[in-house]
Amino acid sequence: MQEISRRNFIKIGAAGALALAASSASATQNAKDVKFDEEYDVVVIGSGFAGSMATLQALKRGKKVLMIEKMGRAGGNSVINAGNMAVPNNEFQKAAGITDSKEAFIADCLKDGLNLNHIDLLGVIYDRAGDAFEYLKSIGVEFSGKVISASGHSLKRAVQAKNASGSGYIQPMHKAIEENANAVIKKRTKFDDFVVDDSGRVVGVKCREEYKFDPQLASDDRENKSGEVKFFKAKDGVILAAGGYSSDKWFRAQQVPYLKDNIETVSQPGATAGTLIAAMKLGANPLQLSWIQLNPYTNPSEKGFGTSALFSNHCANDYGLTVDPKTGKRFMNEHAGRKIKTEAIFKCMAESENNDNYPVNICDQAAVDANNPVYTSKGVEAGSIKKFNTLEELAKFYKIPLEPFLKTIADFNGYVKAGSDPEFGKPLTKADVSGIDVSKAPFYACQTSPKILYCMGGVQINTKAQVIDAASGEPIAGLYAAGEITGGVHGASRLGTMSMADCMVFGMVAAENI
Amino acid sequence: MQEISRRNFIKIGAAGALALAASSASATQNAKDVKFDEEYDVVVIGSGFAGSMATLQALKRGKKVLMIEKMGRAGGNSVINAGNMAVPNNEFQKAAGITDSKEAFIADCLKDGLNLNHIDLLGVIYDRAGDAFEYLKSIGVEFSGKVISASGHSLKRAVQAKNASGSGYIQPMHKAIEENANAVIKKRTKFDDFVVDDSGRVVGVKCREEYKFDPQLASDDRENKSGEVKFFKAKDGVILAAGGYSSDKWFRAQQVPYLKDNIETVSQPGATAGTLIAAMKLGANPLQLSWIQLNPYTNPSEKGFGTSALFSNHCANDYGLTVDPKTGKRFMNEHAGRKIKTEAIFKCMAESENNDNYPVNICDQAAVDANNPVYTSKGVEAGSIKKFNTLEELAKFYKIPLEPFLKTIADFNGYVKAGSDPEFGKPLTKADVSGIDVSKAPFYACQTSPKILYCMGGVQINTKAQVIDAASGEPIAGLYAAGEITGGVHGASRLGTMSMADCMVFGMVAAENI
Repeated sequence: MQEISRRNFIKIGAAGALALAASSASATQNAKDVKFDEEYDVVVIGSGFAGSMATLQALKRGKKVLMIEKMGRAGGNSVINAGNMAVPNNEFQKAAGITDSKEAFIADCLKDGLNLNHIDLLGVIYDRAGDAFEYLKSIGVEFSGKVISASGHSLKRAVQAKNASGSGYIQPMHKAIEENANAVIKKRTKFDDFVVDDSGRVVGVKCREEYKFDPQLASDDRENKSGEVKFFKAKDGVILAAGGYSSDKWFRAQQVPYLKDNIETVSQPGATAGTLIAAMKLGANPLQLSWIQLNPYTNPSEKGFGTSALFSNHCANDYGLTVDPKTGKRFMNEHAGRKIKTEAIFKCMAESENNDNYPVNICDQAAVDANNPVYTSKGVEAGSIKKFNTLEELAKFYKIPLEPFLKTIADFNGYVKAGSDPEFGKPLTKADVSGIDVSKAPFYACQTSPKILYCMGGVQINTKAQVIDAASGEPIAGLYAAGEITGGVHGASRLGTMSMADCMVFGMVAAENI
Repeated sequence: MQEISRRNFIKIGAAGALALAASSASATQNAKDVKFDEEYDVVVIGSGFAGSMATLQALKRGKKVLMIEKMGRAGGNSVINAGNMAVPNNEFQKAAGITDSKEAFIADCLKDGLNLNHIDLLGVIYDRAGDAFEYLKSIGVEFSGKVISASGHSLKRAVQAKNASGSGYIQPMHKAIEENANAVIKKRTKFDDFVVDDSGRVVGVKCREEYKFDPQLASDDRENKSGEVKFFKAKDGVILAAGGYSSDKWFRAQQVPYLKDNIETVSQPGATAGTLIAAMKLGANPLQLSWIQLNPYTNPSEKGFGTSALFSNHCANDYGLTVDPKTGKRFMNEHAGRKIKTEAIFKCMAESENNDNYPVNICDQAAVDANNPVYTSKGVEAGSIKKFNTLEELAKFYKIPLEPFLKTIADFNGYVKAGSDPEFGKPLTKADVSGIDVSKAPFYACQTSPKILYCMGGVQINTKAQVIDAASGEPIAGLYAAGEITGGVHGASRLGTMSMADCMVFGMVAAENI
């Protein structure tokens, strides 16, 4: 082998031999062996909230930016997001007379996060979410004007897009990027690896253009060889904003073996671990990869996120109640964090042999009216949310024993009146939780079963969004990350509306520091 | 920079430049750039249970083996281990009339492991622990002849060293290694990185001899530059058996931020993440790194594992009961797994403002007599275990309210008699759990507070102990791992006596497959 290597060395010359040496140890490319096809100041991997915000903020600083997206559609999971963003101290929160605090914000996150959160990163989100919000308004993102509640938060602190969807952010963000002469967006362009210089600094990326993602493959990252290799220089550095690995069936199941192939996810099929794995091989410290969140609002009869999840979350869980159809009784604090609710729902489902004793989320017309009407109308049209003229009809439809069910409703209404839930500690002090007005039809209901929603784990970053090397504990020069590809922010469980805050803030911070 | 590189290239020649190129992309060395100082068939990193078993089994196959240990003392944490090893279907278990099963074994592990365990690996332990046990007997390991219970196991299945310590295994194992002409043990020799060939196969290691571990450094792995660099060839491959990262204050706190620097560990100070980090950089898939186990048996007044932990575990938790000194009441199933008990104890401790409402583990003389006498005698001598002539004296000493305490004892005795614990579900069907014989002094008691014990996370291996590459999902050629440096076996929480079973079985399996 050594003989052949020496002969090759003479034949292909020094640069070629250096390339061989580098590629044998790791797929990472050395800049000396690379002829860049295009040159930019900043390369951003991913086109969702984090990637788009990073791109915009880098453009604002006069940088020439390339944003790549492996899928044919830009926006990642962000365009199918519900469009709610935690922004402590936002104008709508103030108008509603709510006083927020850093202590309350961090305490809320730590509670569901089981104290695994990196508090310094939560502090950055608290301090900077307002800046991100102001910027988003300045480029034309339209907000509903309401401050809304979300599971796990002790007070209302989220703003919401007027169209109740992440697309309400992504569309104006991408429009602003497209209008900027310093920006290039390349779709169907897959990141394969980093290019580093002799000091180990990240100075570019190896990609494939004309890449065609194939959802039929067991692992697109491993098997898909489509596209043409290109090298893009990133003079100032690379920002990772490639999202999570909810759709990476192999990778997620090694971390959490019970997440079998047939468990559904609300993420788009491109949410795979490839970029994260390349970063780990470069030395990035992987944090808390085995914490994968399930969404307790999804419906077993629907594909993906479906049309009923916002109803279950905001109308039923916030304003109404959830019952076990076998007993007719409540079994959880409907306002608890996702992890607690997911575990309670899985336990309820397991009461039937086929694991299909799906809990029923219930609310009245007042709860529907208090929320964005599309939360309910879409699901009613699709048939996943059912509308009933009487509670008796509702009980009959879901095979809930009537008497205990009616007693549960009466008890719950009593708790709402008293302002306290002695059974499960649901916070009922807010005027909004109205209980179920039994005198006013119609009533709404929807089954629920958890689906994979979000990966809390990812690469470690510091408060400047620099990726941290596991061996040295220091930043990897030229490498930044933001959003779901990072770990540590949310600990064991991300609260609702915190993903967008995380993406927007650290996308912005990465671009400010690159 | 490029200019300088070219000049350097000319000056230092081709081989040197290749070395430079490789080290810029990654610290991993290419074999072409390395002159090996010594050649072996197998290099084993670590000298505890896993490393020693791997060495012995490789020697058995006629291999020339180098076992390296960075500390001045061989044996790692294994020599301070309690010496109990789960061996399903062992001769002592059979003699006691206990029938084990793979289903029960796996179910026990999954329960405390929160279903995060890799079941195929548990299957290998069940199938092969008996082979490891027979081999250990053949080289002179002496067993007590008893089958013993351990927290989280639904039946007794562990063997124990006659001297109630891991040294009862390590001493005969190292003696057998030292007597073998094909074996070399190098202490004070630190693994720094891998040497790979052009195909990426691991063919050797870069180490430092005459290395002096410095416990005063904030991070020995990062700061300690002592020793002389050596390259050792490993013709057949390298076996990682370097243990966990309980003593790596930086690394553990990134995964679990509440494990602050001042939280104690029962591990030796050399239990750092360096080898794991090098493996991740080579591409090894890191599993479940944020699951770090605390030992619920340790004593707040003692350093490290101390002298009372075996008493608390086996005498008090198995045979007796644990009370909250504030209430005099029990608050947990004393036979639950470590994770459940740790959380319950932390909750109890937090009842006082200073976090020092330490639970009290209690048992009678019969419980002490049923166990290895050194479990109790050492702690009584050291003063961490207290001996009382009356329960009144005991209550007074720990400031436990007497009346509720005596009622708790009476209730517990009633449960033992009835064979069922309606309060916390502690299994009481075994004849051994005798309750507290209030008529027979003395009584024994000991405070308890958790310390860091074990890292469940580590590199992924398959059933042949081959390390799995995150990108390909395939084994990394030439790289094997066993014991605490691997992840996935124990999921969220390792059961007692399972560490040794894991180390011995996968040390053996690695050597069989290399």
